Amino acid sequence: MLLARVIGNVVSTVKNDTLTGKKILVLQPIDSAGKDRGEKLLALDSVGAGAAETVYYCRGREAGFPWYPDDVPVDATIVGIVDHVNVSRQ
Amino acid sequence: MLLARVIGNVVSTVKNDTLTGKKILVLQPIDSAGKDRGEKLLALDSVGAGAAETVYYCRGREAGFPWYPDDVPVDATIVGIVDHVNVSRQ
Amino acid sequence: MLLARVIGNVVSTVKNDTLTGKKILVLQPIDSAGKDRGEKLLALDSVGAGAAETVYYCRGREAGFPWYPDDVPVDATIVGIVDHVNVSRQ
Amino acid sequence: MLLARVIGNVVSTVKNDTLTGKKILVLQPIDSAGKDRGEKLLALDSVGAGAAETVYYCRGREAGFPWYPDDVPVDATIVGIVDHVNVSRQ
Amino acid sequence: MLLARVIGNVVSTVKNDTLTGKKILVLQPIDSAGKDRGEKLLALDSVGAGAAETVYYCRGREAGFPWYPDDVPVDATIVGIVDHVNVSRQ
Repeated sequence: MLLARVIGNVVSTVKNDTLTGKKILVLQPIDSAGKDRGEKLLALDSVGAGAAETVYYCRGREAGFPWYPDDVPVDATIVGIVDHVNVSRQ
Repeated sequence: MLLARVIGNVVSTVKNDTLTGKKILVLQPIDSAGKDRGEKLLALDSVGAGAAETVYYCRGREAGFPWYPDDVPVDATIVGIVDHVNVSRQ
Repeated sequence: MLLARVIGNVVSTVKNDTLTGKKILVLQPIDSAGKDRGEKLLALDSVGAGAAETVYYCRGREAGFPWYPDDVPVDATIVGIVDHVNVSRQ
Repeated sequence: MLLARVIGNVVSTVKNDTLTGKKILVLQPIDSAGKDRGEKLLALDSVGAGAAETVYYCRGREAGFPWYPDDVPVDATIVGIVDHVNVSRQ
Repeated sequence: MLLARVIGNVVSTVKNDTLTGKKILVLQPIDSAGKDRGEKLLALDSVGAGAAETVYYCRGREAGFPWYPDDVPVDATIVGIVDHVNVSRQ
């Protein structure tokens, strides 16, 4: 999983049926010190994350697991909100 | 998922049977400000996206979900059309 | 999916049983204008593609779908031959 | 799989139910000589790895296999602790 | 799939149960001319590959297929040994 900050959201009327009612958030990936790194992406939210919160997200097939047995066409999902990151060596 | 603009399409007569009758579009990935970023790719369309529209697409195994239970050999599918992207910090 | 040109093949006697009798081709990924981009890779062929043809290939788990229900350990498969690519903006 | 060193952990109260009780570690990928390379990431631990240990981790769908039949939304899992790496040519 | 040369192995006592008895090899990815490219990685071996041999490996979920129905947490597996690579254009 990777760390990211929630920085926005996407409004979309026409979409795959299974996405109806699911928040699509814009994420900025960050490193363990909170600094931006890499490109922004879109992710679904399975934990109620809000704007500016630090989260970690899961990519790939398993990004759809929180909605199992529905097969949601999603490749990135927020699976947790970060309280604190402990790193012994930057 | 990632944002992209529909910029073209592929004509293909010889293809895997499960792809018959499905539109293959050329996508240019873009950032949340609408600027091009990264390499163009081919994607199937599950929502009726048209030329020049801003869409978001899903990659990987789950790109085939819109056609489930058919197992379509596709690794990128448009799953929504974007009305608006709200970003609090570029 | 991504565009590529077929530029060679791999001869391999010792291989996983499920790969027996399947052509392994060398692909050079190309952009929509036909120019090389990125690294060459190996792919199986599900459509009868030949040397120098322009094709599109599918990556990941779904690359094995053309041989379903056989579970072929393959991560890239040619799923179509390109007749023409229309792009409104390069 | 890739080599990495365990350099920290993430404290997270709000998370997907299936992640409850599982350690989330911060990994620094390393090369076979033990030198850092690439970006840090978060992984679950299936083998009891501790701080500063050299491990190898598995990415993608199969990162969830150690918890099967639970469908854990995880894309990186530590699957072994390294005793020694033998490389004939650096 | 990608080409690689076997350049070493990993000794690991503590590991996921399903990995017991499986060789973990260190691979150096190479191009079709045999030159190194990209980062080394760890892979399981499903074909009896030995040191210095040129092989091709499969990444992702399907890397576990050679051990099906066991769900082995592996994301890279050697699936064939290369006799010869024919490329019409370098």
